[in-house]
Amino acid sequence: MRTRLSLSDYVSGILARDRLVLSRAITLVESRLESDQALARQVLEQLLPHTGKSVRVGITGVPGVGKSTFIEAFGKQLTRQGKRLAVLAVDPTSQRSGGSLLGDKTRMETLSVDPLAYIRPSPAGNSLGGVAHRTRETMLLCEAAGFDVILVETVGVGQSETLVHGMVDFFLLLMLAGAGDELQGMKRGIMELADALAITKADGDNLAAAKRAKAEYQNALHLFPPTGTGWFPPVMTCSAQTGDGIEAVWNIIQEHQTLTTRNGQRDRRRQAQNIEWLHSYIRQQLEMHFYNQPGMRERLASVEEQVRTGTLLPIQAAEILFRPA
Amino acid sequence: MRTRLSLSDYVSGILARDRLVLSRAITLVESRLESDQALARQVLEQLLPHTGKSVRVGITGVPGVGKSTFIEAFGKQLTRQGKRLAVLAVDPTSQRSGGSLLGDKTRMETLSVDPLAYIRPSPAGNSLGGVAHRTRETMLLCEAAGFDVILVETVGVGQSETLVHGMVDFFLLLMLAGAGDELQGMKRGIMELADALAITKADGDNLAAAKRAKAEYQNALHLFPPTGTGWFPPVMTCSAQTGDGIEAVWNIIQEHQTLTTRNGQRDRRRQAQNIEWLHSYIRQQLEMHFYNQPGMRERLASVEEQVRTGTLLPIQAAEILFRPA
Repeated sequence: MRTRLSLSDYVSGILARDRLVLSRAITLVESRLESDQALARQVLEQLLPHTGKSVRVGITGVPGVGKSTFIEAFGKQLTRQGKRLAVLAVDPTSQRSGGSLLGDKTRMETLSVDPLAYIRPSPAGNSLGGVAHRTRETMLLCEAAGFDVILVETVGVGQSETLVHGMVDFFLLLMLAGAGDELQGMKRGIMELADALAITKADGDNLAAAKRAKAEYQNALHLFPPTGTGWFPPVMTCSAQTGDGIEAVWNIIQEHQTLTTRNGQRDRRRQAQNIEWLHSYIRQQLEMHFYNQPGMRERLASVEEQVRTGTLLPIQAAEILFRPA
Repeated sequence: MRTRLSLSDYVSGILARDRLVLSRAITLVESRLESDQALARQVLEQLLPHTGKSVRVGITGVPGVGKSTFIEAFGKQLTRQGKRLAVLAVDPTSQRSGGSLLGDKTRMETLSVDPLAYIRPSPAGNSLGGVAHRTRETMLLCEAAGFDVILVETVGVGQSETLVHGMVDFFLLLMLAGAGDELQGMKRGIMELADALAITKADGDNLAAAKRAKAEYQNALHLFPPTGTGWFPPVMTCSAQTGDGIEAVWNIIQEHQTLTTRNGQRDRRRQAQNIEWLHSYIRQQLEMHFYNQPGMRERLASVEEQVRTGTLLPIQAAEILFRPA
């Protein structure tokens, strides 16, 4: 078993952009040991003044949309410009599969060996809220380690998109041309969260369909409620294969950063995200404490069954659970 | 001060469809006195087998869309068919204004004196969650009192649409023709929750624009992720003034009920709503207990300020609040 580093070793190592120390600090943040958690908080506390300087980008899209190949092409384009890029993930299913998202490094062959890129799979966790908290903290560590762009990838499971939307400056939705079956996996309400849509796989035989889809979505987005930031979410097409449109995505993100930095929206969004993070952390702690009581799992299963069949009111069920076992 | 009725008087009165008893039972449900709450639970418990038989319809739309006139025309059409209709509201602002929504009975002049209709303004409440819980309970009381259709109106404030969406079988979004300024008040993500869109004020000079809007939204909705229920949300036009399209809205709701009753989606949706109600009630109780601690308001304001300015991590702030004052 590895020994832990000292507080100052973590802090100075991260500020010196030492990959190994960064990785060990992330492991510390992800640990569930009380003592690790306490040390992790101290590390984060000292690094806090060095955070906040990256462009935070969330990326989502249904399985099959080509997220990994997009991130590979997009990331290479950034590192070619000398940008330092960290790729994180929020995947609530990773505790089961042992890190499905980004876990398979072969999915990003080139990026994973790029010295300017750092790829970290989703932390495992009992709850999506917990996974999200650890990803936020990891994002801060990466910022202190000097990464210019943080990409947070999410699979469309549970509330993961909403949580990732709540930790980034820019939320990019990848889509496939052609509505219908391909979209079965996408949840309702996600489209309206996006700061931009990119139609992927816009190449070869697929190009015409992608262009049609772009026009259709462009029309559709005009009908959406405005974002309230002066930003109008654009629709793009791109191809990881040909490279077409990949640079345009980065240009759009930069345009958005420029606009929202100038009009103060970026800072307001981050402040609101921090306040929401505080309250969601409190909520998570309260619920964890409640649901982890001994015997609660069985008691919950029993009342839920009665609630489902309509023989018990939800509020009665809650009162039963609030009584001492 | 009125004395309370006995448990059996509430129950038998409601089952006998006595309006006065129903109103007093709702007041009991809305009361914050411990003893009232306990009695209200007993009333609900006994009435539970008599609930669930209504069609539950949620209605939302930005101010100015003509919600009240729509509900008046829609409601009259139902009562003309002999249907018994209850109109409830979820309005988190009503604690300030003293019941803004539906509070002004003159807004529904005809419906408010219709013997088959029952209109109840939004309960006041400290939290939107609390308001929603009381509205759910009021809905059950109305069902036990034999109402065939329950309309739950909401203003687009806070998370009220999501909460109302979580308590109804069918969620109707009223919209005005012409995107842009008129939609400033609508929140993103709401359009995708709707089971149907109705463009209001489709009459006179406005008719052509309404028809254009209908076609545009129809195209846009085709691009949305499917509802997963086999239901495709239609777009309609209607006019409370001429009466055009009002009956069509009710026909659509009935079609939806037929489909989702047959394929089991309605029951599954209600079961999932009940489970979510249980957990949101638990969450609300836990948070209420936490945030209502003496001195918490001041402590919270202090750490929130530091979180906002970036000098304190949200998780550190939470830890400060979890420490005894």
